[in-house]
Amino acid sequence: MKVYNFSAGPSVLPEAVLKRAQDELLNYNSTGMSIVEMSHRTKAFDEVIQRTESLLRELMQIPDDYYVLFLQGGASTQFDAIPLNLLKTGKADYVVTGNFASKAAQAASRYGDIKIAASSKQDNYTYIPDLTGDIFRPDADYIHITSNNTIFGSRITKDKIPTTVAPLVCDCSSHILGEEIEVSKYGMLYAGAQKNIAPAGLTIVIIKKDMTTYPMDICPIMLKYSTHAENGSMYNTPPCFPIYMAMLNLEWLKEFGGIKAMEQQNIYKASLLYDYIDSTDFYKNNIKPEDRSIMNVPFVTGSAELDAQFVKEAGANGFVSIKGHRVVGGMRASIYNGMPVEGVKALVEFMKDFEMRNK
Amino acid sequence: MKVYNFSAGPSVLPEAVLKRAQDELLNYNSTGMSIVEMSHRTKAFDEVIQRTESLLRELMQIPDDYYVLFLQGGASTQFDAIPLNLLKTGKADYVVTGNFASKAAQAASRYGDIKIAASSKQDNYTYIPDLTGDIFRPDADYIHITSNNTIFGSRITKDKIPTTVAPLVCDCSSHILGEEIEVSKYGMLYAGAQKNIAPAGLTIVIIKKDMTTYPMDICPIMLKYSTHAENGSMYNTPPCFPIYMAMLNLEWLKEFGGIKAMEQQNIYKASLLYDYIDSTDFYKNNIKPEDRSIMNVPFVTGSAELDAQFVKEAGANGFVSIKGHRVVGGMRASIYNGMPVEGVKALVEFMKDFEMRNK
Repeated sequence: MKVYNFSAGPSVLPEAVLKRAQDELLNYNSTGMSIVEMSHRTKAFDEVIQRTESLLRELMQIPDDYYVLFLQGGASTQFDAIPLNLLKTGKADYVVTGNFASKAAQAASRYGDIKIAASSKQDNYTYIPDLTGDIFRPDADYIHITSNNTIFGSRITKDKIPTTVAPLVCDCSSHILGEEIEVSKYGMLYAGAQKNIAPAGLTIVIIKKDMTTYPMDICPIMLKYSTHAENGSMYNTPPCFPIYMAMLNLEWLKEFGGIKAMEQQNIYKASLLYDYIDSTDFYKNNIKPEDRSIMNVPFVTGSAELDAQFVKEAGANGFVSIKGHRVVGGMRASIYNGMPVEGVKALVEFMKDFEMRNK
Repeated sequence: MKVYNFSAGPSVLPEAVLKRAQDELLNYNSTGMSIVEMSHRTKAFDEVIQRTESLLRELMQIPDDYYVLFLQGGASTQFDAIPLNLLKTGKADYVVTGNFASKAAQAASRYGDIKIAASSKQDNYTYIPDLTGDIFRPDADYIHITSNNTIFGSRITKDKIPTTVAPLVCDCSSHILGEEIEVSKYGMLYAGAQKNIAPAGLTIVIIKKDMTTYPMDICPIMLKYSTHAENGSMYNTPPCFPIYMAMLNLEWLKEFGGIKAMEQQNIYKASLLYDYIDSTDFYKNNIKPEDRSIMNVPFVTGSAELDAQFVKEAGANGFVSIKGHRVVGGMRASIYNGMPVEGVKALVEFMKDFEMRNK
């Protein structure tokens, strides 16, 4: 049975990428060694990390005055590292649009004066609050946003990204490479790799060079951006395999036509689901239409029993990891770059069939 | 050409382990998914992490009052995390027997009163200092040792592991699973996986449960042992692929006969090299014989040009990553569990041949 993996992360990777990794797993590039047992100080691995960075810079159009860092620990570790590196006067403003945005703000509040500049928590994160006007403190050290909310299925669309006096810091874990991001609008972007880039174990930080120089005294050496920036992400052994897989995935994305082409396909995939959901009373998506994510599409039937039955039958038919996050319930289809159009079409067909049998 | 990989880390993995990973890379355990794209919340991955922990507990005989944590960031991140979690009165004593031991002490000194209880730095780390008597402060929060020194090729043999009042904390990155370790003598053991356990990107912490409860206020959430202990190492997405590879490697080690059997093979492999080196004036190992590592065997010819020629010719003959660390020079053969006996024998033959041609 063909399996379609709708997991929110770690997530589906392109079959071509997995096949190439499989082909060369015992002998990378005629070295006679596996990429997973090769010293990170070899010429072969150095070429891998350089090529990964250069592909990312090319595809995302990252300006030269930004570092690209390959780190460990997940976006969650950045929730600590950001205040420890970027608080100078001690003030930062956070926009809370979901579970991870809230965790980021909580972690930061241990180190400084953190203001929640906007939040949609009181409405179960069903929309993106207005981010214009003077909601941000002009003397804040930075402004933190989460541009796609994995659990709730919302996103800050490009036209709503705020223009701020302080540098904008953005967790884009769940839509990096899935949509165009104008890097120069940000002081720092960061993303766990396990959704749209590579297997779990890699976190990418894209940060303006002049923002890496003033960590707090209490910042652990390994959480300082300067530690990794000064050593080309090889202060210690980097997560070699996820970096290599990111390279393969970026090559695949480049061959596909780049991020703009991928964004168009992602918009199409998402519209297949949203258009069908909106066309029936059987399923419902609770996010304000203009704020809907094109990566994570949650939906409910309105009945907890029917939802459970859907998840069970879907699994039996090869639509796996489609259960919604426990704080939301229902279902969630995460349709990252690696999910083919036919996977989404097959899911819509299954949803129609399930509706017919249960309405 | 057959390649033997003598890298100090990431390092050679057993061919059988790599082949199994390759076989199931596109379809793990009939799930229709790759292990690298599977949600860490699936039943299939939960079984992987549980089995990895249970194999490690069985093989290392880890008592029930210890947590086994699967973390990210390398042993270097533990250099920060240890003082941030374990300093209570603010005092800790460190034994400095090499480069990483020194880095661990330096990181800790940012957070408390750190005493270097013993060091062989003034003699280029060519031996393990005496660790008996009252060199440790009885009121220290913990004592830190590095039981195998990757760069210099020394180790603290079992009979020299100190008996201390304060809990013993040990970086065993470069010989975990290669030699028996009596876990109950330690408060905490930790190891980067990329030498003897799995590909890079996983750090294993084995810690007494009662030592995880008093992190300092400034300890980042993601560096607290309690964060990971309370969540079965799944507070956030763990490094799934290295954990899976650790499982395969531990299964291989169990089939081999366990750690004691492996230690005997490692002693034999090391003796092939040391016996030959000691039998000739052409090569020299600078470590005091009773303190020699059985994992990392550095040697020099005494001539920098000959050393460079050796490294070059060795590489051309399939003995790769054998260049010594820059602070030591010469050559270093890292002969972890994954290095077969025939690899060491072939290297000794090459060394003999090189000697014949150049003495």
